[in-house]
Amino acid sequence: MGKIVLVLSVLVFPVLAIAADGDQALITQAKQVLGPLPAAMVSEKNPITPEKVALGKMLFYENRIIADGTISCWKCHPFNLYGADGLRTSVADSCKSVARNAPTVFNAASQIAQHWVGNRTDVEDQAKGGFVVPAAAGMPSADLVKEALGRIRGYGPLFQRAFPADKDPVNADNYGLAVGAFERTLVTPGPFDAFLKGDLAAFSDAQKTGLRMFLEAGCAGCHSSAYVGGQMYQKFGVVEAPWQYTKSKNIDEGRYTITKNESDTYVFKVPVLRNVEMTSPYFQDGSVDSLHTAVWIMGKVQLGKNLTDQQAGDIVVFLKTLTGQIPREALVVPILPPSE
Amino acid sequence: MGKIVLVLSVLVFPVLAIAADGDQALITQAKQVLGPLPAAMVSEKNPITPEKVALGKMLFYENRIIADGTISCWKCHPFNLYGADGLRTSVADSCKSVARNAPTVFNAASQIAQHWVGNRTDVEDQAKGGFVVPAAAGMPSADLVKEALGRIRGYGPLFQRAFPADKDPVNADNYGLAVGAFERTLVTPGPFDAFLKGDLAAFSDAQKTGLRMFLEAGCAGCHSSAYVGGQMYQKFGVVEAPWQYTKSKNIDEGRYTITKNESDTYVFKVPVLRNVEMTSPYFQDGSVDSLHTAVWIMGKVQLGKNLTDQQAGDIVVFLKTLTGQIPREALVVPILPPSE
Repeated sequence: MGKIVLVLSVLVFPVLAIAADGDQALITQAKQVLGPLPAAMVSEKNPITPEKVALGKMLFYENRIIADGTISCWKCHPFNLYGADGLRTSVADSCKSVARNAPTVFNAASQIAQHWVGNRTDVEDQAKGGFVVPAAAGMPSADLVKEALGRIRGYGPLFQRAFPADKDPVNADNYGLAVGAFERTLVTPGPFDAFLKGDLAAFSDAQKTGLRMFLEAGCAGCHSSAYVGGQMYQKFGVVEAPWQYTKSKNIDEGRYTITKNESDTYVFKVPVLRNVEMTSPYFQDGSVDSLHTAVWIMGKVQLGKNLTDQQAGDIVVFLKTLTGQIPREALVVPILPPSE
Repeated sequence: MGKIVLVLSVLVFPVLAIAADGDQALITQAKQVLGPLPAAMVSEKNPITPEKVALGKMLFYENRIIADGTISCWKCHPFNLYGADGLRTSVADSCKSVARNAPTVFNAASQIAQHWVGNRTDVEDQAKGGFVVPAAAGMPSADLVKEALGRIRGYGPLFQRAFPADKDPVNADNYGLAVGAFERTLVTPGPFDAFLKGDLAAFSDAQKTGLRMFLEAGCAGCHSSAYVGGQMYQKFGVVEAPWQYTKSKNIDEGRYTITKNESDTYVFKVPVLRNVEMTSPYFQDGSVDSLHTAVWIMGKVQLGKNLTDQQAGDIVVFLKTLTGQIPREALVVPILPPSE
């Protein structure tokens, strides 16, 4: 027995060492462009406090302050569907169509800007804008928002506690700051983060193969950072137009619609790929249901690569390691103050 | 000191004894028509199992299986507003108006029937009906519901576990049974239950006064049982028509609309008053915002009593003791299977 154990350990040990070396090399390579999620997405402009987060979480669910009473942040970003709504394109106040697919609210706050075309500077601006702009929530002005918030008397003390320096804290700006502070806590670390931090057992061989393929194919050229996206704008269709593959019904001109610069035609913010497995359908118009198909299209039109089924499948295996844990506290439904 | 203590205890003891006797008499009187909530609202037809409850909770949030993708049980019964939606009347699929105010889903399963006019026999029937009837969720048939459920592959094993005896368990009937089983767990005991069970400290003097006024005014004649309602039908406007007080825009003919019996005109199911503080606006058309006003109107038109502000206020103080604790587990958002 003694001899067999000795022989086995001599045989096995170098293999393990090589595997570990390979893993370390993969981690090092991945960390050059990607990274583990932080504990929260902090902002100097809007420091996260427990009072703001608690209020922001309530306001995230609040439908009573918005024009037809059916819209809240939750409407398009329910946590049961990982912060997206499962629709091709979202539905706003009074059943108006929204032009684009709702991106998840998780891991969203550290992007260069918000919305597919970057027309909101940050989550605070998005939250406030989301309901003072008629297109989304149908509220014609910040004054009406203030009035609607003020009618629910239970909010007064909560805004006071969250914004102690303000004399008149119940207003649309502070709505944006509170919701933004809450959203800054919504990070969802998963197996990929564990692996990057050195937990080699967090990844199977198939997942390592998937990560290698993701890096080698060039996906991380745009889908970079801890968020695996959200750090730059890019034309949808660098190599060729995507529309024959996406079968999009309406062709979205992207940032051109807001900048009117020809060079911004079909340009969108590169989306965050965290939890992408859970947020079908895909692309700015939700035109594609399958993640595998979406990966193949991206290879084709962005990188000029005709990925095999195996290669696209490998990348999907890696992308599923980006499905993370929603903070436990964020999953507990807050009770809102009564209407009177 | 010894003498003073002796004197005090001689003086104080009989007063406390009388107070306790008065409390016991009040509890006894209350228990003749009201009662503490059970642990769950059981049904022989649909036994509650953990597997059904877990699946039912997920389906309660599920919007992807319903016509325009924006409707779920949660839409009109969000827990953050105590299982109602805060609207005068609800909004269904494709922004169609629903005729009546959404009652809370909490403590709802032991009523004689469901809906304001009793056109659903029980919560299982309501849950299934809620989405195979075009008026609510826009799904034209149970077959389409089955198909839509089947497309989300993650549900297959969950239905199998919840309905192990069924060969083909993913269907609209089992949707109703699972959601119904979940709803049968939604009981919210509060201070009133503690008081009825003998915890005299659970009620202040003002709350006892309120309970006495509720009983003496005759409210419990209709708002009876542990649910403080839901056990009978009654005409809205027994003594006089309510419409000049409710300022209702449309006069709802109640059960007449389904039975076509003249005697059912303006007849509705007596609503459950549990958590009534949290579920403004009031009445079948949500025409009244203030609970105080609603109580006064009920006294006037149902009992022929012109309650003073003090009396209506006392009753409101009691009604607030019906605000209870939502089961902790029910408040944790479930994550739904991905669309693929």
